[in-house]
Amino acid sequence: MTRKIFSLLITLTFFTFLIFTEINLNAQQLPSEEIQKYSELASKIVRSALLDKKGYGWLKELCAIGPRLSGSDNSSKAITWAKNKMSECGFDSVWLQPVMVPKWVRGKIENAYISKSKKYLNKKLTIASYGGSIGTSKRGIYGEIIEVKGLEEVKNLGDKAKGKIVFYNRSFDNGLLNTFEGYGRAVDQRVNGAIEASKVGAVAVIVRSVQASFDNVPHTGVMNYQEGVKQIPSAAISVMDADFLSKAIKSEPNLNITIKMDCKSYPDVQSYNVIGQLTGTENPNEVIVVGGHFDSWDKGCGAHDDGAPCLQTMEALELLKRMNIKPKRTIRCVLFINEENGLRGGIEYGKYSSNTFEKHLAGIESDRGAFTPRGFSVTTDSLSLMKMQSWLPILNKANIDWIRKGGSGGDVGQIKNAKALLGYVPDDQRYMDLHHSDNDVYSAVHPREMELGSAAIAIISYLLSEEGL
Amino acid sequence: MTRKIFSLLITLTFFTFLIFTEINLNAQQLPSEEIQKYSELASKIVRSALLDKKGYGWLKELCAIGPRLSGSDNSSKAITWAKNKMSECGFDSVWLQPVMVPKWVRGKIENAYISKSKKYLNKKLTIASYGGSIGTSKRGIYGEIIEVKGLEEVKNLGDKAKGKIVFYNRSFDNGLLNTFEGYGRAVDQRVNGAIEASKVGAVAVIVRSVQASFDNVPHTGVMNYQEGVKQIPSAAISVMDADFLSKAIKSEPNLNITIKMDCKSYPDVQSYNVIGQLTGTENPNEVIVVGGHFDSWDKGCGAHDDGAPCLQTMEALELLKRMNIKPKRTIRCVLFINEENGLRGGIEYGKYSSNTFEKHLAGIESDRGAFTPRGFSVTTDSLSLMKMQSWLPILNKANIDWIRKGGSGGDVGQIKNAKALLGYVPDDQRYMDLHHSDNDVYSAVHPREMELGSAAIAIISYLLSEEGL
Repeated sequence: MTRKIFSLLITLTFFTFLIFTEINLNAQQLPSEEIQKYSELASKIVRSALLDKKGYGWLKELCAIGPRLSGSDNSSKAITWAKNKMSECGFDSVWLQPVMVPKWVRGKIENAYISKSKKYLNKKLTIASYGGSIGTSKRGIYGEIIEVKGLEEVKNLGDKAKGKIVFYNRSFDNGLLNTFEGYGRAVDQRVNGAIEASKVGAVAVIVRSVQASFDNVPHTGVMNYQEGVKQIPSAAISVMDADFLSKAIKSEPNLNITIKMDCKSYPDVQSYNVIGQLTGTENPNEVIVVGGHFDSWDKGCGAHDDGAPCLQTMEALELLKRMNIKPKRTIRCVLFINEENGLRGGIEYGKYSSNTFEKHLAGIESDRGAFTPRGFSVTTDSLSLMKMQSWLPILNKANIDWIRKGGSGGDVGQIKNAKALLGYVPDDQRYMDLHHSDNDVYSAVHPREMELGSAAIAIISYLLSEEGL
Repeated sequence: MTRKIFSLLITLTFFTFLIFTEINLNAQQLPSEEIQKYSELASKIVRSALLDKKGYGWLKELCAIGPRLSGSDNSSKAITWAKNKMSECGFDSVWLQPVMVPKWVRGKIENAYISKSKKYLNKKLTIASYGGSIGTSKRGIYGEIIEVKGLEEVKNLGDKAKGKIVFYNRSFDNGLLNTFEGYGRAVDQRVNGAIEASKVGAVAVIVRSVQASFDNVPHTGVMNYQEGVKQIPSAAISVMDADFLSKAIKSEPNLNITIKMDCKSYPDVQSYNVIGQLTGTENPNEVIVVGGHFDSWDKGCGAHDDGAPCLQTMEALELLKRMNIKPKRTIRCVLFINEENGLRGGIEYGKYSSNTFEKHLAGIESDRGAFTPRGFSVTTDSLSLMKMQSWLPILNKANIDWIRKGGSGGDVGQIKNAKALLGYVPDDQRYMDLHHSDNDVYSAVHPREMELGSAAIAIISYLLSEEGL
């Protein structure tokens, strides 16, 4: 008898669970007339974005200022420009959040050449100092080249690297579908290459430029030093010159190169996150953050990384205003400073988000270029994910084909208590051709592709504001 | 009693239907280990395509020949090149299918200028004769401009257009998500503009270049004449000059322009579809056609329209060969000649497909540029569509996000008895900036984007070959 009651209870529990799940699932679905209503609005937002191209116009102004490395004069100018632009847009509040940022200056000298060789004497090599690197003395650093494919190989060099220049030459894997994955697998050479080389006595490192394309334009990026390990200069060498050098040292193992760099780090300086918002009419203290990082590297003008994506999040708010929309919850644009070489802006906003009485519902980061939209990548619970996925017929209007579990981004990732963290994911096939390089300029951004991203971010922010999670 | 039997019968029929449908649906689904097996192969194909970039290399050779307008010497050279390339690839059979094609030659003169005006005398206007247009006399055609927004407006002009040059100036709608839709809504002015203008006594037409971008590069394309209606010259005017001219005639309604063109039509000439195949090992007479049109306009080099997409279908076969795959059914690449101004190649192959003992299972067209992959658009029955949709986890490896009901393409559309007709759909945001213009060159094609398309077509062809429909 007990057994019967037991199995009855189990059955009942099971059915209650099923019914509960079903109710929950249904609660996540929008009725079709709501889908219809939002879809019409989405089409209007897309149309307006594509026709006005306001964000693309802003990008031209921003790129005219020049690249925006943290702590630079350009970066200050850009911050003032963005604050004024947000005010002109008539956002409900606009303010600056103070952040101390590192200051590193590339200087005027970064060159390298073959300084001892029978065949190649004085051949120039195209390099770009890595952000954070120390410079060389005026006469430069010279030495024999020792080529390696990665950090592990260096650790095992023993005395062989002593007094030499370590040349990290592992290629970007172009066989992968996702170029960010290719980047992720190659970038350790850049980030930690100087540390490991210094430990085995090398005097400098050059690293095969981390990029998908084949050209003579080296890509810069951040590199690290480690306390207690001697700092040595570190620079990217263009992939064309990396191939050349690799061949050259095979025929002349003892050739020397000389590197001259006058880059330098300075004490931290005052900077700011730029923040503007449409204040919620019903739940002003529930916040949806949209944003990207407003600093860039000092090559090109940071058009795709991360100028246009920042401006997409700013335009998302402006698009909602243009439609006379007053969101129920607060939609806040945060242009984070110093993602590239410190993440100080993201960390500062993250601290604020942990201490404020406001509740952060969601954070949406745009930091993967401004190419044609593909989807949103989301860190959240399964029910919230399903709820967002039910919005796909609406987001389709802006060329969004999917919403999947996945990461968001370094800056919004600092908002630890948000219910959902999203990354806007445009197509990535062309991104690693220009990222952190002189190729990352205004003309590399396509107006329609950029504007569709602005529209997609506007639509999903509005849905989050109205429907919650 | 009869009623009871009747309702029992109805119920039985209903359940039989349900069970039958269920069985059918299940029959469409691949077991997960098959999905796994195909996915691994798909990843290998993608990797090989991205690393070798063979199709992109072919595109460089093809573009070096120059544009490939039907009936031109270049077009003959390209046909020979493709036939040889297919033979080099070791396809099981390679042959040419004879097709007579029209021959139209742009000539050396196509210019226009303002020939009567107080303010703008001798200002040049950038034009491009439309394919099929007659030329002007040596001294040109001159006349007042009458600006209209479309064909209906011209029909209602009465005597007002007599002796004048009709200027069609309806803009491309950039507010639409799909640029092909924008194109479709504007292109009637180009195709039938001369007919309607001639009917009301106009001496020539110029048409605002049908394109999404704003520049000074006019896009050409086909235009029609109608029997019994006097033929008049017809040309595109660049969108920048269209805007200029529209403003100019507002301030000076009587200004004249002069148009000089020496384009000309010649008698039909012999040409060919280029065909190569991997012959099926189990069902050689069941055929999957993949292809695009090998002719192009005579501006740029027809890189996106339709050089690279053609080469994607050729490379799809080569990729399968590279993997040592021998497909069960025949996979045939057809490079159709003369889609742009006649569709003769498509029609010829269509005739063949109707009369042969072979069974055409599917036709896949690649004629939407070679940008990053998005999906396949399919005309077929619902069960076949569901079957193909169940392959999405495999096609994802090549950046394919969806398979939807929709059109295929002009050429494979001529294969009337195929069970499924598919169109490969890459992203279209940049396409209408370069289509039919001097902007459609090799450097506008991105190697990774092109190669992913080749891989996607290889994968779906192979699935069709092995799994059938």
